[in-house]
Amino acid sequence: MTITQVSVRDARFPLSGGAGTDSLHTNPVYSYATALLQTDTGATGTGLAFTLGGGNELVCQAIQLLAEPLVGLETEELMAQLGTLQRRLADHPQLRWLGPHKGVVQLALAALNNACWDLWAKAHGVPLWKLLLDLSPEALLATLDLSYVDDALTPAQALELLRQPRSQTHFLTDGYPGYDTSAGWLGYDDTKLAENIKKSLGAGFTALKLKVGSDDFTRDLRRATLVREAIGDAGSLMCDANQKWSLPEAEAACRALAPLKPLWIEEPTHPDDLLAHQRLNTEVVPGRIAAGEHFPNRIVFKNYLQAGALAYVQADAVRLAGVSEFLAVSLLAKKFGKPIVPHVGDMGQLHQHLVLFNAIVLGQEPVFLEHIPHLKPHFVHPAQVENGVYKTPQEPGASCDLR
Amino acid sequence: MTITQVSVRDARFPLSGGAGTDSLHTNPVYSYATALLQTDTGATGTGLAFTLGGGNELVCQAIQLLAEPLVGLETEELMAQLGTLQRRLADHPQLRWLGPHKGVVQLALAALNNACWDLWAKAHGVPLWKLLLDLSPEALLATLDLSYVDDALTPAQALELLRQPRSQTHFLTDGYPGYDTSAGWLGYDDTKLAENIKKSLGAGFTALKLKVGSDDFTRDLRRATLVREAIGDAGSLMCDANQKWSLPEAEAACRALAPLKPLWIEEPTHPDDLLAHQRLNTEVVPGRIAAGEHFPNRIVFKNYLQAGALAYVQADAVRLAGVSEFLAVSLLAKKFGKPIVPHVGDMGQLHQHLVLFNAIVLGQEPVFLEHIPHLKPHFVHPAQVENGVYKTPQEPGASCDLR
Repeated sequence: MTITQVSVRDARFPLSGGAGTDSLHTNPVYSYATALLQTDTGATGTGLAFTLGGGNELVCQAIQLLAEPLVGLETEELMAQLGTLQRRLADHPQLRWLGPHKGVVQLALAALNNACWDLWAKAHGVPLWKLLLDLSPEALLATLDLSYVDDALTPAQALELLRQPRSQTHFLTDGYPGYDTSAGWLGYDDTKLAENIKKSLGAGFTALKLKVGSDDFTRDLRRATLVREAIGDAGSLMCDANQKWSLPEAEAACRALAPLKPLWIEEPTHPDDLLAHQRLNTEVVPGRIAAGEHFPNRIVFKNYLQAGALAYVQADAVRLAGVSEFLAVSLLAKKFGKPIVPHVGDMGQLHQHLVLFNAIVLGQEPVFLEHIPHLKPHFVHPAQVENGVYKTPQEPGASCDLR
Repeated sequence: MTITQVSVRDARFPLSGGAGTDSLHTNPVYSYATALLQTDTGATGTGLAFTLGGGNELVCQAIQLLAEPLVGLETEELMAQLGTLQRRLADHPQLRWLGPHKGVVQLALAALNNACWDLWAKAHGVPLWKLLLDLSPEALLATLDLSYVDDALTPAQALELLRQPRSQTHFLTDGYPGYDTSAGWLGYDDTKLAENIKKSLGAGFTALKLKVGSDDFTRDLRRATLVREAIGDAGSLMCDANQKWSLPEAEAACRALAPLKPLWIEEPTHPDDLLAHQRLNTEVVPGRIAAGEHFPNRIVFKNYLQAGALAYVQADAVRLAGVSEFLAVSLLAKKFGKPIVPHVGDMGQLHQHLVLFNAIVLGQEPVFLEHIPHLKPHFVHPAQVENGVYKTPQEPGASCDLR
């Protein structure tokens, strides 16, 4: 199976009624800059990068600017050298200046890398999770670019982590719990929030995320209390500020939310502020900080892990440079003993595979994935979440094909 | 003077013979994504963002995506609220996702902000440095977005720094020293390097930057020795690795270069690796690390300053979100007692003004600016560097108009 052409699709899906809104992103149009690897067999590799609409066309153009070295490669040849190729694309001598390894060019690389993995799984006729479980540690290592993180994770250490005995294989048959992000968007009023919590509990979820970072913090506190009372002590409440607060504001807000026992407080402040997160996670609300959906690359995750600046690693393969960099971050997280609970810019389509890899190959706990259903009708094989549980996908590929 | 329209120019200037080459950027086409603020008086505000060619068109498009709120604003009205407007553009609810505050969208904001300052100076009929010296502390503060850095620098503290007695005004008449980056591009062979050093010394420079990060480190060491011998103990040697090394490689290289007494070692590794820089600057070669040309925003500079991770602050107003963010970083640097020695993606055109502000208003030392002459013929008012000294520009504006 040989790649003959790389095309793009600028796919945008308007939401309505406040869905998807948070403290800073008030009018999202969930969108994918989509890389499509066409092959001589008719099979297509689909790779997504997520945006909120504006500028999605810039990511599509950047995909085209980066794509040329992929054309003409046979699938096995491609994947045997994917790590090297990934580094070559990431370090494009002119486009690198636009990052490096962040922003539009990194999102473009995400889409391309994800398309390679989707194509490879389709070439093998298996779901991505199965391809990942079947790969030898050496073959998997060859797909990774570990440059700039080898002070924390050498290739030899990566191999050692990949060679551990496997565990938790029961998730393949039983599925694993999702958590519901869509009950508490910031644009929903209290009535709608209350209705949604009821629906969510009725649908089998026991863990709910609430958007916080309202202009009036007493609103946040009132709503968080409402959620905690509805789910009881046994349920899990997560609060997500989406970077709204300065460090002093974040300190005050975290202390005020702490009595409600949030499992985590997410993106309390700017993602570039390592030291602020370190302070919050070690001194203000120890072990309760989650972040990562806006960390552009493995190097930032490495620093956060080294500094103890987060407790939950919210890597996202449609923000990072694709599955390859997600796996590199997973290995780093394992090394530092922190769990990955992905952010799902992909609506869980791709991450449902990656969570199984982390659970079974790396033995990560908890096994837990965000659930956002708004784009379900637009996927060819939408993730199946039943009674609050993600079911294991069986179709070949990475479940990212759009209708 | 009212802004009637925002247009863009995608300006690219090919170099030749290895000029501009470094360890990672091997074929640069010096380029400007240029924002042009058209007004009802016929005056134009010109704002630059620098790239290496590839993707310059993406930055131009992003300028257009962000520009709309500027149209219809009168110059004084604009500048009285520039800080607020800057934050609004930086936090565009959809485009923010492409950063936040980094990459293509941040470069676009740089071009727009720089164009605003150029226009304002032209409206006053003065060079930018004079406008900056004439502004009240309060008026200057109103041009800044200090969000996410107020834990390190409150608006009140910024005002206090701006109210200090002025110093070093003699630089306005005497000029200040430049340093030469163009003697030692990585693509130049030893013969050309030796010739260039001779030319550079003959032209009055006493400080030279050498590109390092060759695939063979012995080449770096040989060339650095060649420079040190040519300039003598009194001259300043700076070594610039342009992010080539991993942390272990950087440690070895810095230790090996230290006996040659480099004034600084620049960009030893990836700009996102705060902790690596901290280790290098505090333990390996204390007080000798320079970085910043790839730091996208004030928040990253804040962390580097808080962590003691650099000794020389190489902010660049055509990488940061323009003059406004450069000034915010200058205030932070002053607060932490570290000098700003700008990187000149603008070839010094804009920074020659900003250095004077830092010297006179903030009392920063050393007063020193990189010099790269390759684009001299393309500017309407090229920076005048005579006998190694930057002369004070007298034309109205920010000296960024392109022919």
